[in-house]
Amino acid sequence: MNQDLRREREAASFNPELLTHVLDGSPENTRRRREIENLILNDPDFQHEDLNFLTRSQRYEVAVRKSANMVKKIREFGIADPEEIMWFKKIHLVNFVEPVGLNFSMFIPTLLNQGTTAQQEKWLFSSQGLQIIGTYAQTEMGHGTHLRGLETTATYDPETKEFILNSPTVTSIKWWPGGLGKTSNHAIVLAQLITKGKCYGLHAFIVPIREIGTHKPLPGITVGDIGPKFGYDEMDNGYLKMDNYRIPRENMLMKYAQVKPDGTYVKPVSNKLTYGTMVFVRSFLVGEAARSLSKACTIAIRYSAVRHQSEIKPGEPEPQILDFQTQQYKLFPLLATAYAFQFVGAYVKETYHRINEGIGQGDLSELPELHALVAGLKAFTSWTTNAAIEACRMACGGHGYSHCSGLPNIYVTFTPTCTFEGENTVMMLQTARFLMKSYDQVHSGKLVGGMVSYLNDRPTQRIQPQQVAVWPTVVDIDSPDSLTEAYKLRAARLVEIAAKNLQNEVIQRESKEVAWNLTSVDLVRASEAHCHYVAVKLFSEKLLKIQDKSVHAVLRNLCLLYCLYGISQKAGDFLQGSIMTESQITQVNQRIKELLTAIRPDAVALVDAFDFQDVTLGSVLGRYDGNVYENLFEWAKKSPLNKSEVHESYYKYLKPLQSKL
Amino acid sequence: MNQDLRREREAASFNPELLTHVLDGSPENTRRRREIENLILNDPDFQHEDLNFLTRSQRYEVAVRKSANMVKKIREFGIADPEEIMWFKKIHLVNFVEPVGLNFSMFIPTLLNQGTTAQQEKWLFSSQGLQIIGTYAQTEMGHGTHLRGLETTATYDPETKEFILNSPTVTSIKWWPGGLGKTSNHAIVLAQLITKGKCYGLHAFIVPIREIGTHKPLPGITVGDIGPKFGYDEMDNGYLKMDNYRIPRENMLMKYAQVKPDGTYVKPVSNKLTYGTMVFVRSFLVGEAARSLSKACTIAIRYSAVRHQSEIKPGEPEPQILDFQTQQYKLFPLLATAYAFQFVGAYVKETYHRINEGIGQGDLSELPELHALVAGLKAFTSWTTNAAIEACRMACGGHGYSHCSGLPNIYVTFTPTCTFEGENTVMMLQTARFLMKSYDQVHSGKLVGGMVSYLNDRPTQRIQPQQVAVWPTVVDIDSPDSLTEAYKLRAARLVEIAAKNLQNEVIQRESKEVAWNLTSVDLVRASEAHCHYVAVKLFSEKLLKIQDKSVHAVLRNLCLLYCLYGISQKAGDFLQGSIMTESQITQVNQRIKELLTAIRPDAVALVDAFDFQDVTLGSVLGRYDGNVYENLFEWAKKSPLNKSEVHESYYKYLKPLQSKL
Repeated sequence: MNQDLRREREAASFNPELLTHVLDGSPENTRRRREIENLILNDPDFQHEDLNFLTRSQRYEVAVRKSANMVKKIREFGIADPEEIMWFKKIHLVNFVEPVGLNFSMFIPTLLNQGTTAQQEKWLFSSQGLQIIGTYAQTEMGHGTHLRGLETTATYDPETKEFILNSPTVTSIKWWPGGLGKTSNHAIVLAQLITKGKCYGLHAFIVPIREIGTHKPLPGITVGDIGPKFGYDEMDNGYLKMDNYRIPRENMLMKYAQVKPDGTYVKPVSNKLTYGTMVFVRSFLVGEAARSLSKACTIAIRYSAVRHQSEIKPGEPEPQILDFQTQQYKLFPLLATAYAFQFVGAYVKETYHRINEGIGQGDLSELPELHALVAGLKAFTSWTTNAAIEACRMACGGHGYSHCSGLPNIYVTFTPTCTFEGENTVMMLQTARFLMKSYDQVHSGKLVGGMVSYLNDRPTQRIQPQQVAVWPTVVDIDSPDSLTEAYKLRAARLVEIAAKNLQNEVIQRESKEVAWNLTSVDLVRASEAHCHYVAVKLFSEKLLKIQDKSVHAVLRNLCLLYCLYGISQKAGDFLQGSIMTESQITQVNQRIKELLTAIRPDAVALVDAFDFQDVTLGSVLGRYDGNVYENLFEWAKKSPLNKSEVHESYYKYLKPLQSKL
Repeated sequence: MNQDLRREREAASFNPELLTHVLDGSPENTRRRREIENLILNDPDFQHEDLNFLTRSQRYEVAVRKSANMVKKIREFGIADPEEIMWFKKIHLVNFVEPVGLNFSMFIPTLLNQGTTAQQEKWLFSSQGLQIIGTYAQTEMGHGTHLRGLETTATYDPETKEFILNSPTVTSIKWWPGGLGKTSNHAIVLAQLITKGKCYGLHAFIVPIREIGTHKPLPGITVGDIGPKFGYDEMDNGYLKMDNYRIPRENMLMKYAQVKPDGTYVKPVSNKLTYGTMVFVRSFLVGEAARSLSKACTIAIRYSAVRHQSEIKPGEPEPQILDFQTQQYKLFPLLATAYAFQFVGAYVKETYHRINEGIGQGDLSELPELHALVAGLKAFTSWTTNAAIEACRMACGGHGYSHCSGLPNIYVTFTPTCTFEGENTVMMLQTARFLMKSYDQVHSGKLVGGMVSYLNDRPTQRIQPQQVAVWPTVVDIDSPDSLTEAYKLRAARLVEIAAKNLQNEVIQRESKEVAWNLTSVDLVRASEAHCHYVAVKLFSEKLLKIQDKSVHAVLRNLCLLYCLYGISQKAGDFLQGSIMTESQITQVNQRIKELLTAIRPDAVALVDAFDFQDVTLGSVLGRYDGNVYENLFEWAKKSPLNKSEVHESYYKYLKPLQSKL
């Protein structure tokens, strides 16, 4: 092991294994996760392959091979639990993505959720066995977030009992679905259903796109890859154009809505249930944000412990860059954020499962709040994580820019999360809609529950500067609970400002919708403050459940840092409304610097606790075995440009120039 | 032309051509720039080639070909002025980089600055003629910013009159130099000079690394490509390991320091002159930040005018996404920042040239302030631009993530700017050192000049909250001058806080250096506030020079938005020290929303004024001819994954699985 890291580990004030148990939920979970991960790490068929040196076409091929191998092995090992499958995939793929993934994550679940028993019988077995390789085609070239704007049509023809699928314009071409470009032979297509001359909105259809056996596109189908992206090189995100393409009536997923053979439309009983899938996917993404940020912190902090550079005292050996206050200030607040998001992710997952059980028993009452909360948290955690991964990368100096760090891959694989499954600004506005509704409810005399219950405290006087004397004494900057109160007051104040600005605009404008648009900056700000409060609250509450004293102490420091850093960054919000005083803000800035010093000796152990066995595979800088620089040199030698010592380009272009000039 | 863009242009309140003249400096400059650019746009040898679909090795080959062609053409067209060469290169390369670029940007200038007349005679002609293809090798695998830490040695052997160059460790291997991996046959190597048993620090040596004619690495030289990076695919950033490799004494650049044949070291008269090159490169980077951000804004704003999505009023057609307040709030402050940085870039360039003339006449008096200012501005503008390019990308939804937008390339090509030529945090601390020196000077009774002259106003009482009644009346949020004053007060206050915290730490700690480290977060904050003040001040002053009324009106709105957005983001800084009141901050937030509405009709014309002919080449979304979506479809079809209809990977990996499962 690297000497610097050995020293860091020996100096830690707590046992990281205990913290790993906290993060996994229990020692048993940790044991089982490692067991699954070790299936791969010890399997000769799963030797890690560095995709960085391959062309896009080669990466695609390797990814298909890996995908196929993985499907086989998951069966072989008998892994069935979705979370265990996720652990397995994560360690196998190491920040890369798999072309047949959509078959399992979208095609099959949609079939199960929206297909009738007969439809499941028809397609489930063959899609599980990969005779059918499916994907999910919703987004179009000209239409993303706004589903009502989708243009693809499915027109029912009662004579032949078929649907005619059509892409009437360039903008209606399906665009982005993963695995569509080359891999899939079926897609669940979302299209505007038209029957008996009337449009009934979006419905899902199972559409064969390639011939099984030959894999050739079927007549009427134009399908291909949408071209290179910022990342996801291995993934054949695709386009799909359908020219009056006919499928049998039975290919419409009919568990809820139906079209009878004569073309009569039967509408579904409730629309709320489709909420469920969105909430599930988004809550999963909150966990992914936590995971990606934790991984980026692991690499950046380990490397900062190993990298020696510059000088603090002249004449002394170059210090570890982790000893620079500016480096600590870059990384430790992100580390604290990673922990905060881990707890937010766990909470969201838990809540989803709890509420989902309720749904199973017909209780949909908590779904709207969960839906609103998860929308905002998806946006809040993914925006923060997005910027934070890049901050980690840039904290690694030049080597962060090299693929040897693994950080560029983590970034480009994560960043689409801000856009897909609900564009972040749109998500924030969905949360805002719930906040405005709750605010109105309180003002009409009804109480609200859950995470927004703070709106019940009459907040009318809060923004008056006269209260200077009242609030400030309340905030104790060394108490997570008291800081949570401060975040609560900030959220309450920003919700109130947004609500009042909205009311003013409604009075002045011709329409509510125009007013909403002209207040949307305030609304997003209110949602962010609400989500930030939720994160702070969950972190503080988590502390109460930590038994081990040394783990508690170090997590408490991280929690304080998370709270105080947020206050320092948004000091204006805490000064306005007199939640805190100027001298308190000065103390906050001072206290942050003390916390950096306090966390410093435990920094490496704190990232060890994330227990990313796969970081070792995906990043030269994040490894902890041997000499980072020797590894780096070995890695570089594999560059495709190093394949020949003497170079064609030189002979072709430069040498002729030498004689001419 | 696209209909949406046509309508936008017709509705503009000003003539963008006049604004282009402002940005270029004069109508004559605009004319000449376009003339140069059109040489390429109209030359059949310069058909634009989209590198997005190529592998890294192919991209490298194309880049060498382009490089070679460019060198030929620049001579053919007789372009000699460095700025004109830059225009030529920019439009030719469209955000890509060229492997032989370092020969012209670093090798030749260093030879000219640090070589004797005899050395220039020996190497200049052949490097201009590309017999010598040179690069500049300074950074090592284990050492970047801290030059004293470099390990490569050049030991003088008086018997043979040679220097023995050696890379004693893995960490000492030269790492990163552009064009080193495959293209160059010479490098200027920075090494610790040792003669007569004593080390005299870093000096520059001309080192042949490949044989001219065969291009094979010379014995004792290990050289190659450092592997794939986040961007710069076409560039062969390389490594260089030297094993007791001998070069003649005459290969040390000896204009300043010298080693006599017997090994006697003669030290240079002054070290200040090496400052000059660094200041030049960094001031150039400030302009690059402005340019990259302007280009990103051009693409994002044009696309936002063309993209229709979602709904503001139910039932109406989908609006242009530029009509959403949240979209305006994402993009217009960045547009305002792009203009601010254009003016900062112009100021820095102008000042450099002015001071450089002085240096020619032996006047070095203004160099320290310029050096300090440019260090901070390089960091300030590049950090801001870095985040802003990504914000532009993400404002384009899914298509921003595709290389069709051109934005990923702009980002990965720009982001190294935060690290190279002086890591940004280190740069901020250099500015801080100057600020602390100036602060001390004022406190010891001497006045300071230039951009820091605000420190002359006795600021002692400023952080006392009792002054609440005095300051707030001063700030008029509709006056750029008054807002500049507010930024000045903020900078003065943060400089003072950093200085006082530094003093406190000095009293408590054993050493000044430890105290400096423990205050560095405050010091960076002070530098940022100082740079922000400079940017605001330069923008405000620029307004005074705009003759045309309609151009003045629209630029004034942008300037106000730039000032107010910064205040809103850093509200805490303006509330503390009572520079502004809470109700003023509320007004600021309201005024920002009004400015978004005011700027909206001119947004497209404002990016047109940047006059990027090459955006048309580098980005499908930034084009303004024809239908964006048709272009996008045509672009996607070129994806390498679309080369064959039926797919090997399917037959190799998926089909066998279908029968097995």
